[in-house]
Amino acid sequence: MGSVASERTVVGWAARDASGHLSPYTYTLRKTGPEDVAVKVLYCGICHTDIHQAKNELGASKYPMVPGHEVVGEVVEVGPEVTKYRAGDVVSVGVIVGCCRECRPCKANVEQYCNKKIWSYNDVYTDGRPTQGGFSSAMIVDQKFVVKVPAGLAPEQAAPLLCAGVTVYSPLKHFGLMAPGLRGGILGLGGVGHMGVKVAKSMGHHVTVISSSGKKRTEAMEHLGADAYLVSSDADQMAAAADSLDYIIDTIPVHHPLETYLALLKLDGKHILMGVIGQPLSFVTPMVMLGRKSITGSFIGSMDETEEVLQFCVDKGLTSQIEVVKMDYVNQALERLERNDVRYRLVVDVAGSNIETPPDRSTASDLA
Amino acid sequence: MGSVASERTVVGWAARDASGHLSPYTYTLRKTGPEDVAVKVLYCGICHTDIHQAKNELGASKYPMVPGHEVVGEVVEVGPEVTKYRAGDVVSVGVIVGCCRECRPCKANVEQYCNKKIWSYNDVYTDGRPTQGGFSSAMIVDQKFVVKVPAGLAPEQAAPLLCAGVTVYSPLKHFGLMAPGLRGGILGLGGVGHMGVKVAKSMGHHVTVISSSGKKRTEAMEHLGADAYLVSSDADQMAAAADSLDYIIDTIPVHHPLETYLALLKLDGKHILMGVIGQPLSFVTPMVMLGRKSITGSFIGSMDETEEVLQFCVDKGLTSQIEVVKMDYVNQALERLERNDVRYRLVVDVAGSNIETPPDRSTASDLA
Repeated sequence: MGSVASERTVVGWAARDASGHLSPYTYTLRKTGPEDVAVKVLYCGICHTDIHQAKNELGASKYPMVPGHEVVGEVVEVGPEVTKYRAGDVVSVGVIVGCCRECRPCKANVEQYCNKKIWSYNDVYTDGRPTQGGFSSAMIVDQKFVVKVPAGLAPEQAAPLLCAGVTVYSPLKHFGLMAPGLRGGILGLGGVGHMGVKVAKSMGHHVTVISSSGKKRTEAMEHLGADAYLVSSDADQMAAAADSLDYIIDTIPVHHPLETYLALLKLDGKHILMGVIGQPLSFVTPMVMLGRKSITGSFIGSMDETEEVLQFCVDKGLTSQIEVVKMDYVNQALERLERNDVRYRLVVDVAGSNIETPPDRSTASDLA
Repeated sequence: MGSVASERTVVGWAARDASGHLSPYTYTLRKTGPEDVAVKVLYCGICHTDIHQAKNELGASKYPMVPGHEVVGEVVEVGPEVTKYRAGDVVSVGVIVGCCRECRPCKANVEQYCNKKIWSYNDVYTDGRPTQGGFSSAMIVDQKFVVKVPAGLAPEQAAPLLCAGVTVYSPLKHFGLMAPGLRGGILGLGGVGHMGVKVAKSMGHHVTVISSSGKKRTEAMEHLGADAYLVSSDADQMAAAADSLDYIIDTIPVHHPLETYLALLKLDGKHILMGVIGQPLSFVTPMVMLGRKSITGSFIGSMDETEEVLQFCVDKGLTSQIEVVKMDYVNQALERLERNDVRYRLVVDVAGSNIETPPDRSTASDLA
């Protein structure tokens, strides 16, 4: 067990170059500061962003890079000014680990929109060190960016909520779309989309999955519990569904037309974008004006909302569909995610993978 | 004076073909129905849409067509079930004169979004007749689409409020943007844009006019009272203004980039489109996601909002900058509007133009 005074040596699985291949990497964490929480990682979900970053697809990757931002772990130590957490607590860490605390978004408790936010990995912390993510034996995180996993939620179940879950919960809450009876559309049925169906159904919405083909109909309707399924290339189906949705959660991560979907929205309907897409999307102005529709977007959620979505899932008995794998499977896992061969979220059992033992016993940390 | 039982013969100035040239045209109005108000037209504003329609630029024009949808007039007769108005009242008529009264928008009193709305001209009324607009000696209009001009508002001043005025007032109200102290941007300084500056200033906002050149600086700052002026091609100015606006009212009627302006919006800022533009506009998704910004649009306003904006202008002492012309000048007026040579709204003094006298005395109505 480390102490406040010492740096910890840990083992993570890091990408070394744009191949994105992960392999064991030994590094040190900062000392546990006064407001820091030291977390032994139990589980870490795999998000599509991990591939983008590991492969330098966003153009700003620095190596070695330990990805992972859907982290669930156990508190092993807290700094002297940490009052909310103590050793043994099961907690979680998401996409960001720092913010300026002074700007308008920070003061409004929506720190995910702070221009100086610090990403959980592939960023530089306030002490000048690179941040490293959750595919690691441990992390040191400021208490502001730690959320307790509530009783009743299995730690591996909590993992996908920290990015995919809060990403769909946050805009539904912010845009006033939590009331039962609303009609929502989910575009794209990956990690975020499947969570969209589940969260929206738990809010009592009528949920339509919209897809380019009929291939996912059974999954959507029978496995995830969607109420309707719409094939976007079927003009008759689409025309019949015009003017019927209060919102669309658009998780498609590549270029796609917007007008096809804008037509499905009711007066004041909202098209909520969640995919970072390099190529511009386009629309003609009457499609938004003559229905006062909004094209908007949202980015993960606040720490408050993260806390809320965890409790929401306990209250609603919502479970995400996950596949738990060991760390030595992570490269295959990333490949499967890249070719969309996942139903619906892969979660690495980090603690169960004994990553500190092989391949380099001499640098194993004292956290295990 | 006509009666409920008889049809009225009136004279309007109509376009006969896609040249858009207006000339006197004699036609009959329907009998004043039980819920109808017969209005002798006093003034009628000239909107850019009048050009689009007269010249068949939207592709659905039917001729002869009497344009004009910023109509102020005097009630000369009311149907037996009309209780709100009586002869002598000064009233106004705007862009629409009918709706289905059964759809969601109608039931929510935002009849401008009814899919079966009836336009004031270039449309077909419930009785199968073509609707004809305000460049005419008189109109018969269902009382639901008539708004009283409040005491304290000159009739010629009311005219531009019925389209341009309510077009900017409605989204500011709907999107919760009426609080003093907000910072707004106005893009485009024509009829709607100038009204945007005035309405926003009257709400106590800090108003920035954004233009492609410095040419309108004096007008914007000194004549209209804007607080700031931003030249969109000046990268330094634009960078300094990033993240500073709560909303942008975008009145540009032709294709333009959105990202330049989206960058000016704060967290949760709204880009409100008001120009019908055939060519698609485009943006990249991070520009909306990483700030939860909305690209939205709005179409005129409801009858309730029309009533409100008229009273708002009385309460705030807001006057629009208009140039009053006679009907025989209307073709020159349309040409000037087309080449943007108007500061800022042209209003035709219809009653003062004696349009029923020449050129065809024999068909003059009995309204004068």
